[in-house]
Amino acid sequence: MKVGIIGASGYGGLELIRLLHNHPEIEQIELFTSSEEGTVFSHKYSHLMNIVDRPLQKIEQEKLVQFDVVFSSAPAGVASHLLPPLIGKGPKLIDLSGDFRLKDVSQYEQWYNKQAAPQEAVAQSVYGLTEWNRDAIQQAQLIANPGCYPTAVLLSLLPLLKNNLIDVSGLIIDAKSGVSGAGNQPSQMTHFSETNENTAIYKIHQHQHIPEIEQAFGLFAHEAPPITFTTHLVPMTRGILATSYAPVQEGVTEAQLVDCLQQTYENHPFVRVLQETIKFGTNQVYGSNYCDLHVKVDPRTNRATIVSVIDNLVKGAAGQAIQNMNVQLGFEEITGLAFVPAFI
Amino acid sequence: MKVGIIGASGYGGLELIRLLHNHPEIEQIELFTSSEEGTVFSHKYSHLMNIVDRPLQKIEQEKLVQFDVVFSSAPAGVASHLLPPLIGKGPKLIDLSGDFRLKDVSQYEQWYNKQAAPQEAVAQSVYGLTEWNRDAIQQAQLIANPGCYPTAVLLSLLPLLKNNLIDVSGLIIDAKSGVSGAGNQPSQMTHFSETNENTAIYKIHQHQHIPEIEQAFGLFAHEAPPITFTTHLVPMTRGILATSYAPVQEGVTEAQLVDCLQQTYENHPFVRVLQETIKFGTNQVYGSNYCDLHVKVDPRTNRATIVSVIDNLVKGAAGQAIQNMNVQLGFEEITGLAFVPAFI
Amino acid sequence: MKVGIIGASGYGGLELIRLLHNHPEIEQIELFTSSEEGTVFSHKYSHLMNIVDRPLQKIEQEKLVQFDVVFSSAPAGVASHLLPPLIGKGPKLIDLSGDFRLKDVSQYEQWYNKQAAPQEAVAQSVYGLTEWNRDAIQQAQLIANPGCYPTAVLLSLLPLLKNNLIDVSGLIIDAKSGVSGAGNQPSQMTHFSETNENTAIYKIHQHQHIPEIEQAFGLFAHEAPPITFTTHLVPMTRGILATSYAPVQEGVTEAQLVDCLQQTYENHPFVRVLQETIKFGTNQVYGSNYCDLHVKVDPRTNRATIVSVIDNLVKGAAGQAIQNMNVQLGFEEITGLAFVPAFI
Amino acid sequence: MKVGIIGASGYGGLELIRLLHNHPEIEQIELFTSSEEGTVFSHKYSHLMNIVDRPLQKIEQEKLVQFDVVFSSAPAGVASHLLPPLIGKGPKLIDLSGDFRLKDVSQYEQWYNKQAAPQEAVAQSVYGLTEWNRDAIQQAQLIANPGCYPTAVLLSLLPLLKNNLIDVSGLIIDAKSGVSGAGNQPSQMTHFSETNENTAIYKIHQHQHIPEIEQAFGLFAHEAPPITFTTHLVPMTRGILATSYAPVQEGVTEAQLVDCLQQTYENHPFVRVLQETIKFGTNQVYGSNYCDLHVKVDPRTNRATIVSVIDNLVKGAAGQAIQNMNVQLGFEEITGLAFVPAFI
Repeated sequence: MKVGIIGASGYGGLELIRLLHNHPEIEQIELFTSSEEGTVFSHKYSHLMNIVDRPLQKIEQEKLVQFDVVFSSAPAGVASHLLPPLIGKGPKLIDLSGDFRLKDVSQYEQWYNKQAAPQEAVAQSVYGLTEWNRDAIQQAQLIANPGCYPTAVLLSLLPLLKNNLIDVSGLIIDAKSGVSGAGNQPSQMTHFSETNENTAIYKIHQHQHIPEIEQAFGLFAHEAPPITFTTHLVPMTRGILATSYAPVQEGVTEAQLVDCLQQTYENHPFVRVLQETIKFGTNQVYGSNYCDLHVKVDPRTNRATIVSVIDNLVKGAAGQAIQNMNVQLGFEEITGLAFVPAFI
Repeated sequence: MKVGIIGASGYGGLELIRLLHNHPEIEQIELFTSSEEGTVFSHKYSHLMNIVDRPLQKIEQEKLVQFDVVFSSAPAGVASHLLPPLIGKGPKLIDLSGDFRLKDVSQYEQWYNKQAAPQEAVAQSVYGLTEWNRDAIQQAQLIANPGCYPTAVLLSLLPLLKNNLIDVSGLIIDAKSGVSGAGNQPSQMTHFSETNENTAIYKIHQHQHIPEIEQAFGLFAHEAPPITFTTHLVPMTRGILATSYAPVQEGVTEAQLVDCLQQTYENHPFVRVLQETIKFGTNQVYGSNYCDLHVKVDPRTNRATIVSVIDNLVKGAAGQAIQNMNVQLGFEEITGLAFVPAFI
Repeated sequence: MKVGIIGASGYGGLELIRLLHNHPEIEQIELFTSSEEGTVFSHKYSHLMNIVDRPLQKIEQEKLVQFDVVFSSAPAGVASHLLPPLIGKGPKLIDLSGDFRLKDVSQYEQWYNKQAAPQEAVAQSVYGLTEWNRDAIQQAQLIANPGCYPTAVLLSLLPLLKNNLIDVSGLIIDAKSGVSGAGNQPSQMTHFSETNENTAIYKIHQHQHIPEIEQAFGLFAHEAPPITFTTHLVPMTRGILATSYAPVQEGVTEAQLVDCLQQTYENHPFVRVLQETIKFGTNQVYGSNYCDLHVKVDPRTNRATIVSVIDNLVKGAAGQAIQNMNVQLGFEEITGLAFVPAFI
Repeated sequence: MKVGIIGASGYGGLELIRLLHNHPEIEQIELFTSSEEGTVFSHKYSHLMNIVDRPLQKIEQEKLVQFDVVFSSAPAGVASHLLPPLIGKGPKLIDLSGDFRLKDVSQYEQWYNKQAAPQEAVAQSVYGLTEWNRDAIQQAQLIANPGCYPTAVLLSLLPLLKNNLIDVSGLIIDAKSGVSGAGNQPSQMTHFSETNENTAIYKIHQHQHIPEIEQAFGLFAHEAPPITFTTHLVPMTRGILATSYAPVQEGVTEAQLVDCLQQTYENHPFVRVLQETIKFGTNQVYGSNYCDLHVKVDPRTNRATIVSVIDNLVKGAAGQAIQNMNVQLGFEEITGLAFVPAFI
């Protein structure tokens, strides 16, 4: 199989390259750029010396249509222009940005403050939350790969909401992310000296992943109230930990919540449910495509605390994109993704 | 003034030494130990060379009674034995552990899993949340200095609860802490390679600061429901960020919440209320005795997100202890504590 | 192929498990312990849930002899007892500790302050610096896998010393390591709050890797003077950067040094020589088996600055051990090790 | 006393503000800017709320001349224009950039790649290495405050060179710095995700502090060979550790080196010489104006390893600038600078 990557310089793109290189079914990877045509990629990123010594190519439709799969990991607002003309022309399309995720394009324009992709393309796109949308993904021409935060949140909450075990009206989601989620563009927000030894909340009530989570609640669990979701930056590179709080429905026990999660994911290799744990953290999925879940009910308050961890660049971006590619192309879901978490 | 410190080797003790050394009213600082008598302190902690070259002294009541103030920063379960015999014998007593914080000693035994201090001593102790208990502190023989998490939580929530602006029944508190809060004892939990690049939740629903927060809600805001409070470890040394979520009461606006916080603290030099902010983090109070607050109401959900940051070793421990000492001894509250946050 | 791992709980052991799991020729991995028999490994290390749910087994010779390869990643002083009885009994033996590295056992006893392995076993062991000892490794029953620091140092300096391009008598080696090199035992030395925001020198002139480097200089480059080698701990988990300084021999140019390195390693897939670089750091080999090299000659001083980076847990430990296994078993050297560096 | 600060937004400027705020002799601090006139400083840096709520002022000579001291912490190439017109007009001038450090202006132009300050102004400037140039500093109109690396290097090596205890011809200096030394301008070099978990060497043989160190060797120790000096970036915010290596002169012992350092600095409160130490790191001077020194001679090689640590923003920048101000104005040297290192 031959794959093309648009926006290879971003962290999503770098991670796609890292993971696809170990994928047994991929024979060729080509990189495309809108601004750095001709640059030998390993001259820009020396960690890829002897691995990706090819030059970046100009984005041209006639070239892209020859690939089996085209990934776009360009920033928001780029794929909305580049991918629609390729729909139905041959390659499977997988976009890692938010450009095709929100079915209501006015929501996109409000939360992203950019022009939306054509309504028709958005309508054709399939939300790539693999464990919840496998059948549609298999048929999809264009996949809107989920955001990093939504992946962590949805995998932990959808089973409990769908089975009506927790009360969505009292739901609070507090998410913490490593800094790589902010991408590779230097800014004051991600300047080492102001990010190190600092835990900060940002974009309060305004994060563009809010409507994405709400839309998926409606789509997969028939729940669609406005949610409280906040995002925090912690001084590490990779990892998201999402802590969610919700009242359990009358009479529901912790064991039922655990069972629900376990049953939901028993045939899904990348979601694990941990029961006993003293310290539950992002390092247990570091570098892997796992999403680990943990749930406890506090008998004093009858509220559940539901925790999930992912590596934001793997399950939260490039890993899930490849998982979706595997589904689209008929490979086993774990092909090329069976990485053991690094932990240290 | 002469002060004695019991448990100087702990991080609370080291920070007391650091801060008291710049206190203009303190002439003499002596260090006491139960196990390292005779050790020259700067041989153990070389950063104190030429600063604290005195040996640790054996804990003896006849010596301790000669001080104006005795601080104890020993671990839980030590001050409960050492301090009660000193009550009324001369020195003002300030305990940085949890031993005298919970008025209901059975709660202490349940949450700390240790034998409680004598009921009589606990009854005489005064909870040292300076901004909320100034009059009692002024008269106190024995101060139970607040925990680090409760300090961050209470300063942000008490004004809103007391003025009935938020609904305590829907309150969720999600706290994130640097690792120094775990003290100086090495363990797997604080081993660098398993703590770095890792954000983790721990002690879910079981943190010993839960009853302390609930007790203070009752004492200062006449609210006492069981609360949901969780704690997370983030890979940094200092700092706590507490994010709280609560429905606002019918008709209450964001401006009212901000006003309430500003009015509550207008004469309190160490609490600041920030209005506009893109990124609100622990580095803006690093190394200082400030507690910074920020509040936003989400019009989509009618919930408030209330954030507070402190340096856990300063306002969350040694700084507040010295602030209490200043009140007890009749000094201006900021004496020796007017440190500018380091930010970088 | 079936492999057994002694000392799986250490960081070398955990990394062996992580890497061997992706090795296409390994069918079975069993874990052995001297003290935690029966413990299900994923109960101890939850990141291995669904991956290594087998219990740790008691170390018994009759079991170990049935494996194709036995790795020992136990601390110094353990393999010296456990491995000698297995020599010649079937399995290839690969020890990741220092127990069989020093041919002069009195040196071991002096630098490690422990009893040495039996002289006979030490004599049979082969030093596993793959790129420099391939033929002997292929025949070896027992491999002494190199230390992390020596790997970084030797790969960069041996070519230049062997070809007499630099003057060993003026050689200085300054090495910086992430904290995982210190292993998984908590201590004050590796306690997060005292390691974070701290760069420190330790064991000045006393690091046990000094005689190992000197021995290899003699063995592979016929140079054996005492060297100056120091070690520093920097606040990160993985990675070693070794900076070496040496006068170049009369008339030798930078281009000659670069050529020498390139020619030495042109058929060695894991050693890369970078020419132009602004910032040369450990992240360019993170998580991979690469050792990257860079050299500059200062025309003002006629000294060369030679820099090398490795991931201490991969090329500096488990990765090189597997590389050696590949050589012993006749697999291609990169089998199961073609990981792309993570960079972020 | 009234002080003005040009370039307050830089990290040197922020640290000056932090430290000067606790200086008992400073009554007024005003901030000047070339580009952000009118901006309320605490709106830009919210950690200074209630502390520096004044607006930035336009740089105007008539205003600046009214101050007792004017500090410039603007980037290289700014003070060279701004300060010369103020010489002899009233205020003592202290520049934290490299603009007046190199007496040979052609060296400045070569290493900084900028136009040098007027030769006359450079000639009048005094190098502000307080412990070594006290008398000249006392008389100085314009102080060229030393660079961060040179401060760490010179304080450790000058005594040994001046007393001819080590051989400068074999001297190697390997320095490691936290990232704040790179200033507040975001760049790929200081982007969190590429700086965290990364130790890197940069600007090999080309760092602009090389000629500064060489000039000071000549000035204070009558030694002026070209030196080997390299710089590394480690993932922490503050701190420099410089490790230097040099052959000891025939017959010189470790005790003599220690004595030399101790005697040199016995009346200098900010330089400490540590003898026994297992781990010697930057955290023992964190946040303070100390420079700590440690020296060991390796009997195997007859080389000395000389280590020094400073907080690059304090002793390496703002702290030393204030120390110089104290000398110029006739205050005790430690006035406002007696901070205890934070350690944690």
